Amino acid sequence: MKIALAQQNYHIGNFEANTRKIIDAIRQAKQAGADLVVFSELSVCGYPPRDFLEFEDFIAQCYASVDRIREEADTIGVIVGSPARHTAPLGKDLFNAAWLLYEKEIKGVAYKTCLPTYDVFDEYRYFEPGYEWNVIPFKGKKIALTICEDIWNLGDNPLYRVCPMDQLIGQTPDLMINISASPFDYDHDADRKEVVRQNVLKYKLPMYYCNAVGSQTEIVFDGGSVVYDAKGRLIKELKYFEEDLEVVDLPVPVPPLYEEILPGFSIPIHTKEAGEELVTPTAKTPGMVETAASASAPEAPALPGEPAAFDREMRVSKLKDPGKIIEYLTNTENIHQIHQALILGIRDYFSKMGFSKAILGSSGGIDSAVTLALACEALGKDNVRAILLPSPYSTSHSVSDAEQLSRTLGNPYDIIPIREVYEALLHTLEPVFKGAAFGLAEENLQSRTRGNILMGIANKFGYILLNTSNKSELSTGYGTLYGDMAGGLSVLGDVYKMQVYALARYINRDGEIIPANILDKAPSAELRPDQKDSDSLPEYDVLDKVLYQYIERRQGPREIIALGIDEALVKRVLRLVNTNEYKRNQFCPIIRVSSKAFGVGRRVPIVGKYLS
Amino acid sequence: MKIALAQQNYHIGNFEANTRKIIDAIRQAKQAGADLVVFSELSVCGYPPRDFLEFEDFIAQCYASVDRIREEADTIGVIVGSPARHTAPLGKDLFNAAWLLYEKEIKGVAYKTCLPTYDVFDEYRYFEPGYEWNVIPFKGKKIALTICEDIWNLGDNPLYRVCPMDQLIGQTPDLMINISASPFDYDHDADRKEVVRQNVLKYKLPMYYCNAVGSQTEIVFDGGSVVYDAKGRLIKELKYFEEDLEVVDLPVPVPPLYEEILPGFSIPIHTKEAGEELVTPTAKTPGMVETAASASAPEAPALPGEPAAFDREMRVSKLKDPGKIIEYLTNTENIHQIHQALILGIRDYFSKMGFSKAILGSSGGIDSAVTLALACEALGKDNVRAILLPSPYSTSHSVSDAEQLSRTLGNPYDIIPIREVYEALLHTLEPVFKGAAFGLAEENLQSRTRGNILMGIANKFGYILLNTSNKSELSTGYGTLYGDMAGGLSVLGDVYKMQVYALARYINRDGEIIPANILDKAPSAELRPDQKDSDSLPEYDVLDKVLYQYIERRQGPREIIALGIDEALVKRVLRLVNTNEYKRNQFCPIIRVSSKAFGVGRRVPIVGKYLS
Repeated sequence: MKIALAQQNYHIGNFEANTRKIIDAIRQAKQAGADLVVFSELSVCGYPPRDFLEFEDFIAQCYASVDRIREEADTIGVIVGSPARHTAPLGKDLFNAAWLLYEKEIKGVAYKTCLPTYDVFDEYRYFEPGYEWNVIPFKGKKIALTICEDIWNLGDNPLYRVCPMDQLIGQTPDLMINISASPFDYDHDADRKEVVRQNVLKYKLPMYYCNAVGSQTEIVFDGGSVVYDAKGRLIKELKYFEEDLEVVDLPVPVPPLYEEILPGFSIPIHTKEAGEELVTPTAKTPGMVETAASASAPEAPALPGEPAAFDREMRVSKLKDPGKIIEYLTNTENIHQIHQALILGIRDYFSKMGFSKAILGSSGGIDSAVTLALACEALGKDNVRAILLPSPYSTSHSVSDAEQLSRTLGNPYDIIPIREVYEALLHTLEPVFKGAAFGLAEENLQSRTRGNILMGIANKFGYILLNTSNKSELSTGYGTLYGDMAGGLSVLGDVYKMQVYALARYINRDGEIIPANILDKAPSAELRPDQKDSDSLPEYDVLDKVLYQYIERRQGPREIIALGIDEALVKRVLRLVNTNEYKRNQFCPIIRVSSKAFGVGRRVPIVGKYLS
Repeated sequence: MKIALAQQNYHIGNFEANTRKIIDAIRQAKQAGADLVVFSELSVCGYPPRDFLEFEDFIAQCYASVDRIREEADTIGVIVGSPARHTAPLGKDLFNAAWLLYEKEIKGVAYKTCLPTYDVFDEYRYFEPGYEWNVIPFKGKKIALTICEDIWNLGDNPLYRVCPMDQLIGQTPDLMINISASPFDYDHDADRKEVVRQNVLKYKLPMYYCNAVGSQTEIVFDGGSVVYDAKGRLIKELKYFEEDLEVVDLPVPVPPLYEEILPGFSIPIHTKEAGEELVTPTAKTPGMVETAASASAPEAPALPGEPAAFDREMRVSKLKDPGKIIEYLTNTENIHQIHQALILGIRDYFSKMGFSKAILGSSGGIDSAVTLALACEALGKDNVRAILLPSPYSTSHSVSDAEQLSRTLGNPYDIIPIREVYEALLHTLEPVFKGAAFGLAEENLQSRTRGNILMGIANKFGYILLNTSNKSELSTGYGTLYGDMAGGLSVLGDVYKMQVYALARYINRDGEIIPANILDKAPSAELRPDQKDSDSLPEYDVLDKVLYQYIERRQGPREIIALGIDEALVKRVLRLVNTNEYKRNQFCPIIRVSSKAFGVGRRVPIVGKYLS
């Protein structure tokens, strides 16, 4: 049986464009002689549709799209993703569904069972988990059809109590098809292929795995669809960070090797490796263990005990040695992937928002330099306008470094000194400030003046302002709301400072694009004389280590201090992270490249008093 | 049995303060001779703790708090809410739990079964639903202990498949206790008492219902804890929007009237009333119905059919006549409640953030006038500084109206003209703007200059900037990012313009505080000569109607047009709402008073192309 995987980049809610794209691929697959063409999860509406799913009108448009696609599914089978109505009296009113269309009819439907509800995922907000499982007959074969997270439970994922493939295997399917919208992050990119392979090894069936590609506001889907044969061999791997379509003609063993399937097979993917062991808190936990009398309480389970597994989402970080966090964060493989993800993230944000031109403040620092280089690659140098906004405290090399960068990149740039506006502000505020000493307020006035000038030009000529803040400064609140925190899209907001340097070196891999002086000089906001980041923050190689442990790994102070980092420093950093939630709350979308980015996937109370 | 309800205002993650508060109430209840004192949901850590729950350190601190409280639970029983570890191999690693402490021991635990995962709620992100139900013996009685949403399923709530009280009733409990963190909104405030009463009527048992009070960033909990006797009579109702503690001595009927419990009893709360019927889309839905052949697909359920019930959260809007939306939105009962919620929301935001002083831009318009009056009531007039920021396009009455308002309120104010800064900006941008005609960019420059000045003063003297935008302008994007959209807290962001007027009239109920001229004049941003809101937007009485139907009721264009509103206007408004998601995404927290506020409870894709 010839099966095509169509790895496409959808636009959420753009039914016209998505349907056209799907129909084009159906025709292409038909021409290539495919029996069946497979699209990714929620392909008709794009993933994630979020609260659009609460509009009956939106669901009706999904159904109308499936209807249009069904007309194309004549002699070729088509598997598309779409929300489906759940009409039983109990349970939420939608399923996340995969529909098999053939002979212009709906031949079968599979409902997603494992609904990810963590990090950027909110599926249980909208969907009822599937509770019936049936293989779908197609051209004499039986398809075990699942959706994304369904194959991430091989029976040992504590997030779920049901393993859909365990339910389906008893109906002796001939092949597995999984349609996904599985996002990229550098921290566990290898997991996905391993999970597909482990499913193949467990069930002794070939698997066709079709993933989405493209960036949806902040979430980057990286494609990389795969086909494995029943022996666990990788037969086909589609492109990463690009659309792709491949037809695979894989002989299906008849009958498949069910007798080889090991009962109770459990994949080792979740086991901790040596050196990966986390420090467990020793704080006394309440109750049950100490008070023997409480054992007589009729319903009492064993309350305390070992802390639960750390990585709630059952993804396995590639970091194996917690002593080498910075090396890990900045290794070339990660940086190469981050580079691709950021380019796609910028490009898709602009094209899907209907914009083509970007503007940004170019300070002569490393963050704006990397952002500018990435934007030029994503949008074309003529579409990126750099504005140099020297203040009275800017050093001369700031302007010359930024000029040199733009001359190398070939993008248009302007120099607009902010002194006149800044001085008008100081003069205007004089009756209120009354000669108070220069301080943070004056620094912020400069930063916000830049924001105002950049937004003014953006509004006047139709640019989107790219934000240049990195994850280290966003974490610690080292930035000015409405000033350098302004912008429509954050390019580096999920990239720690040490990684920004690594990205700069990567961008320079074939020759100097970012001037060496920008890489070499000490980071500074240049908002007062001789200012350095290190006046306010720990050195970035220490800071980033603490931040990674706290943000990505959700470790508490005790565990981080146990890595040998100074206690006062750790507590100060965690306090900075938590007390600056109010700033990040007003920040623009951040292209997500890590396993825990600020934004939709990290939800922290603003008025909270934890570790602060 | 004497049972105390302790309705308290917690601070999320502030274990020290919360534990102290709980222990104080335990001592108070003991002095009043109570056998048992009941606290609200997740009382030890505050609700909602959000992603703090992902930190093992945070859970350990919850356990440590329960331990401290347990020491106080000697001769008095204590029911507190806390996360509890789930140690079974499958299922998420936490429960949302209610613990009964007595004789310094844990006597029993109940786990929340119905986990709200909609609107502002994310409980399935963190918790495993309870799957075992047992009454808890206490002083010879059996307590059926449930948590918040658990009692919102009486067997007919389609969001859930399990009804915890149905599970417990077979163990012949003597009384029901429910601990809640049930937030306020004006759209269905009466539901809560009705749900408690319906539980009592169904199970023929008294219910002690303890709710939280206080505002947590954007979510306002309004208290109103209640006790009903087994006959469905309201015995005690605690205060609204305030802390309270009451002891109720209710004779428990022994044995309770189990024989009277009707099997299959179903409350009428979810049935639609006449006139409330929603227009259902007539768009053809795909597949199954039309194609008889598809019936042979082995697993196919009836896919299409009637759209699911509209109000996904099973709350019932008080609006009965869709022809009278504006009357409903502005009725005195709603406005009175909104007023209380906003006062509490402001007060708690400041106190929990550790701030006492507010600043805001006072334009002479209705929005800033109402915000200022509310802030003075919440924080004290001396703690609220109004800044009048006239631009070259401000009318003279703007300043005089704003001055009159502050003279009446007695709060400090300054007049800081923005002309000098605005002209410096225009001069600075001249080489880039090159004489282009005055437009939106120049309007935004003025607005952002105000933002910069206000934030400058806030940073200099430690104020929090209050935002004055209303829900109508936030919906339509009629505002300037980093300009009038700046601020740390939005007071009116969940209040439609027509409701802002009603709030102003309410504030003036005992005498003119807000000058009549502010109420009477046509709304204007005053950013160019003779500007009026109505140049850009529909009249507010029409606009607010469309917005309410779209945002609160999630109706699509078809249903809204069917109410008799012009099609082009409806489509234009919905397009404005959806294309301005990028602006709201960077907006500050909004005190939530409606059933659907912008912010954490409404999650819409930014790059989406739906209705736009």
